[in-house]
Amino acid sequence: MKGYFITIEGSDGSGKSTQLKKIISYLEKKQVDLVVTREPGGTDVAEAIRELILDPAYPQMTAKTEMLLYAAARAQHVEEKVLPALQAGKVVLSDRYVDSSIAYQAYGRGLGDMVAQVNAIATGGLVPDLTVFLDLPPAVGMARKQQEENHELDRLEQEKLEFHQKVYEGYDALCKKEPERICRIDASGTIEEVFGQIKAALDELLDRA
Amino acid sequence: MKGYFITIEGSDGSGKSTQLKKIISYLEKKQVDLVVTREPGGTDVAEAIRELILDPAYPQMTAKTEMLLYAAARAQHVEEKVLPALQAGKVVLSDRYVDSSIAYQAYGRGLGDMVAQVNAIATGGLVPDLTVFLDLPPAVGMARKQQEENHELDRLEQEKLEFHQKVYEGYDALCKKEPERICRIDASGTIEEVFGQIKAALDELLDRA
Repeated sequence: MKGYFITIEGSDGSGKSTQLKKIISYLEKKQVDLVVTREPGGTDVAEAIRELILDPAYPQMTAKTEMLLYAAARAQHVEEKVLPALQAGKVVLSDRYVDSSIAYQAYGRGLGDMVAQVNAIATGGLVPDLTVFLDLPPAVGMARKQQEENHELDRLEQEKLEFHQKVYEGYDALCKKEPERICRIDASGTIEEVFGQIKAALDELLDRA
Repeated sequence: MKGYFITIEGSDGSGKSTQLKKIISYLEKKQVDLVVTREPGGTDVAEAIRELILDPAYPQMTAKTEMLLYAAARAQHVEEKVLPALQAGKVVLSDRYVDSSIAYQAYGRGLGDMVAQVNAIATGGLVPDLTVFLDLPPAVGMARKQQEENHELDRLEQEKLEFHQKVYEGYDALCKKEPERICRIDASGTIEEVFGQIKAALDELLDRA
């Protein structure tokens, strides 16, 4: 395995989409052989599973079913797209990965340890080389999100602030457990301030090579 | 929990559909408060997952993804339909359950122990009171199936006989491991001969009450 696997995580409204664009632009300028992908999704099968998870027609979907669907999409994504790219020496940048399931399902939905167990099976144990976590208190993030015009909230986004508080506790626990892998970025500053911190983490990883 | 959970399993072509109809008719005559269901499926969410699994548009679906999708459908089925019916004292009869995943995924697809681990999580440990296994050598079953007219084979059915041989080994291992729960029925006889054996097993379970 010669490539690097980089993931980006953050609560809703933490500026993840904006920073993702800046990361892509930066890595392309550095002439990194880059594969950009996202979860849930990233392949046709996984995108079909994503549609099912986010379909508002299924409010009765249980937390455990949702968690297993995310894991199914992830298994496909890893085997079909992420692993082949890493084996070809590329840098894979994924918008969300296992940490999202730990935060949203284990903590947010209260499913606990079963989420890590199922995901260890789904991924075959593939762990990112670097995870960028955009750290923003959920109250601030939700307020940002809802102020955006013409944005229709999906099922997950409609969940209440209390849920996002639990998700945030999940990310906080992950940051404390794996400080070497997860780079915790203060996302409360300006776009350029935030990106400056991310750039430093990217340079540190890529200059190892 | 006052009800009984009965499942029926069998290789393709073992006469499962025919025997299922006879079981339903028999239990209805006995005035059993019956819920008939099937896997993958049994609820709207689970049927939507079933469609995705069986969709021939996704030949690239990995074995692990397929296994996790079955588990997701099962989690929904158990929580939304099976458990509430059992708690209301009903008899739930399901066409396939966890044993199918052990036979088809753990043995047939070679995924091994991870299938039982994921399914223990998906079901919360719910095990049937009685499982009827229609035992027919796969070569005989496949020949029966393909002789049926106007039957379009789905993705799983298109798999080769070698696969069905592994599936059969899975069922065989389960029968040996759990002889108390799984009633192994010789499915090579006439419809009435086979049903006679099933009827005896049903009577034994229901007369316990």
